[in-house]
Amino acid sequence: MVAAQTEISEVDGQNGRLIYRGGHLINELADRSYEAIAYLLWQGELPSQEQEAELKAQFAEHRTLNEQARAALAGLRADVDPMDALRTLLSAQTAAPGCPKPTLQEAVKITAVLPTEVAAFYRRVQGKGPIDPRSDLGHAANFVYMLEGKEPSPDRVRYLESYLVLLADHGLNASTFAARVTASTGSDLASAIVAGVAALKGPAHGGAATAAMVMLDKVGGADNAEKFVVDLLNTKGRLMGFGHRIYRTYDPRAKILKQLAEQGNPKFYAVAAKVEEVALRELLARHPERPNATNVDYYSAGVLAAAGFPKEFFTCVFAASRVAGWTAHVLEYMAKDGRILRPASEWLGPQPGAHNSSGKQN
Amino acid sequence: MVAAQTEISEVDGQNGRLIYRGGHLINELADRSYEAIAYLLWQGELPSQEQEAELKAQFAEHRTLNEQARAALAGLRADVDPMDALRTLLSAQTAAPGCPKPTLQEAVKITAVLPTEVAAFYRRVQGKGPIDPRSDLGHAANFVYMLEGKEPSPDRVRYLESYLVLLADHGLNASTFAARVTASTGSDLASAIVAGVAALKGPAHGGAATAAMVMLDKVGGADNAEKFVVDLLNTKGRLMGFGHRIYRTYDPRAKILKQLAEQGNPKFYAVAAKVEEVALRELLARHPERPNATNVDYYSAGVLAAAGFPKEFFTCVFAASRVAGWTAHVLEYMAKDGRILRPASEWLGPQPGAHNSSGKQN
Repeated sequence: MVAAQTEISEVDGQNGRLIYRGGHLINELADRSYEAIAYLLWQGELPSQEQEAELKAQFAEHRTLNEQARAALAGLRADVDPMDALRTLLSAQTAAPGCPKPTLQEAVKITAVLPTEVAAFYRRVQGKGPIDPRSDLGHAANFVYMLEGKEPSPDRVRYLESYLVLLADHGLNASTFAARVTASTGSDLASAIVAGVAALKGPAHGGAATAAMVMLDKVGGADNAEKFVVDLLNTKGRLMGFGHRIYRTYDPRAKILKQLAEQGNPKFYAVAAKVEEVALRELLARHPERPNATNVDYYSAGVLAAAGFPKEFFTCVFAASRVAGWTAHVLEYMAKDGRILRPASEWLGPQPGAHNSSGKQN
Repeated sequence: MVAAQTEISEVDGQNGRLIYRGGHLINELADRSYEAIAYLLWQGELPSQEQEAELKAQFAEHRTLNEQARAALAGLRADVDPMDALRTLLSAQTAAPGCPKPTLQEAVKITAVLPTEVAAFYRRVQGKGPIDPRSDLGHAANFVYMLEGKEPSPDRVRYLESYLVLLADHGLNASTFAARVTASTGSDLASAIVAGVAALKGPAHGGAATAAMVMLDKVGGADNAEKFVVDLLNTKGRLMGFGHRIYRTYDPRAKILKQLAEQGNPKFYAVAAKVEEVALRELLARHPERPNATNVDYYSAGVLAAAGFPKEFFTCVFAASRVAGWTAHVLEYMAKDGRILRPASEWLGPQPGAHNSSGKQN
């Protein structure tokens, strides 16, 4: 079903290309700041230096948790899923009067503060209070800063920033679709983004990088990769991080993330690259009819770990990236279409009269 | 687009019929308890007396706000939209470890406590603390009880209960679709329901009854109905509560709600019935090609007011009804299909190369 027309991004699965708004290939953008990419997705073109600086200043201004989010944070048990915590803090932070129409200003505010919500719960898990954001740091640098309260190395910032840029949009994926359906009722932007977070949580979507890391943690070293993969496949276990519904060739984001994981996380890379080699060989032998390339989640795991995030928080960082895409899609939908998305369903139940009637039919 | 197959409910718009699971016409069910209807939507058949009593006992057991929801409630400003409050309290109440697979038991828990979340914020708006639920009352009676701490009259309970039954499901509407899309990623039931609440908020969906009441509050008495409607239409204003995307004839729920509004809210009814008469006459004269019947939201407003809810809370009561449908749809989806819902999109942007290339393309 074609459920939307969009200019925000296009997944060209046949040719292994991801195109961001304005016709930019993803591999041309991997070195840009997250703010520049958010600007591109929202405005349709890359910002000038001045425009980028202006957006960075706006991001820095809107990074602080409000009292509503702080109260919700204080009440959360430390063992809840970080995505449940993000869903709750995002909802509390954005709870406001009425049902305002989605605006770019609101998109900036929601995007700017999302890492603060994630980092605050990261600190809560460690039994520590949240670290106030710094307004002199860029979006990615401040995100890493809020984990520990120390200025991060440029390398860690680069790993995170590249990840945030690469994952910022990906066509009409399930979480983006949930956000668009929500906005189509005339609901507000915050509600649409809460729906996006709710949908991203699933292991078939945003939860996949965590699942890949859980698997790789079990391998026990590169020397064990061969046996691990073969045993897993022989016992009908599932290899995490391979295959995609759309890409028929290599995912262009996976290529870049693989390079970053090699630089930033050599210990992870040694195991992951060997597992990948065996996995691709075995999958090809067992299912030659399937396109089983390494997907974006596989090396994301190593890159996010290199940036300093534990695997339980990978999906939250994914949300911190995709929020630019979600908001861009909602703004596009409201500007271009805005009609309520109410798809048809096919009824499989019985017709009235097939059951014991109560006699009150009229 | 046909986006799902379902047995939960069917909107037969041509014949003005709404069919609930098992082939039950909605007008056969309006006198049943909400618990019986939740049972029907979840289990596929109406409960025996014993089964209904057992489900009522389960509902009564799971009505209490936990510490997470109480903390979030304490932090909310009293002027936020009640749907934002519900979104936040529901998210806080259900935040839990991991990503559990949706179960019937979880559906019962989420459905049972939702009115407590709504009533707690209602009390907060009034500057009062929440009232603990009573386990000796049915679902609808306890809901009204928690507003004021007094046992409600049987009539008020009946108005609310009929409303809750009539709105509990309605095919693949936008909020139900948002819940199904969310669950399709493997996300948990609570996240799917949060997405449903987020989508229901919009004025083109759940927010419509409030909009109808806002309009009717402005009429200024039945004697002014003629002038009000004609003036509104002459100035391109929008009449709230008329027309539906699917029903070509009368909405069967609107018929029942009209009767209930007449009994329970004669002051409202006197104005609303006169406005309806003029509106249908004028709409037919101006747009004879359109099916412009009174929709469910119009008389819902009078019935919910008769049950004791202020108009700002109408959408929250809608959520307290529809949650049975949302959860039933998610359980059905996971049992029958469970694949990720990723619709196709049509790319309207330029191809790579159309912009100033940075030269790094590879």
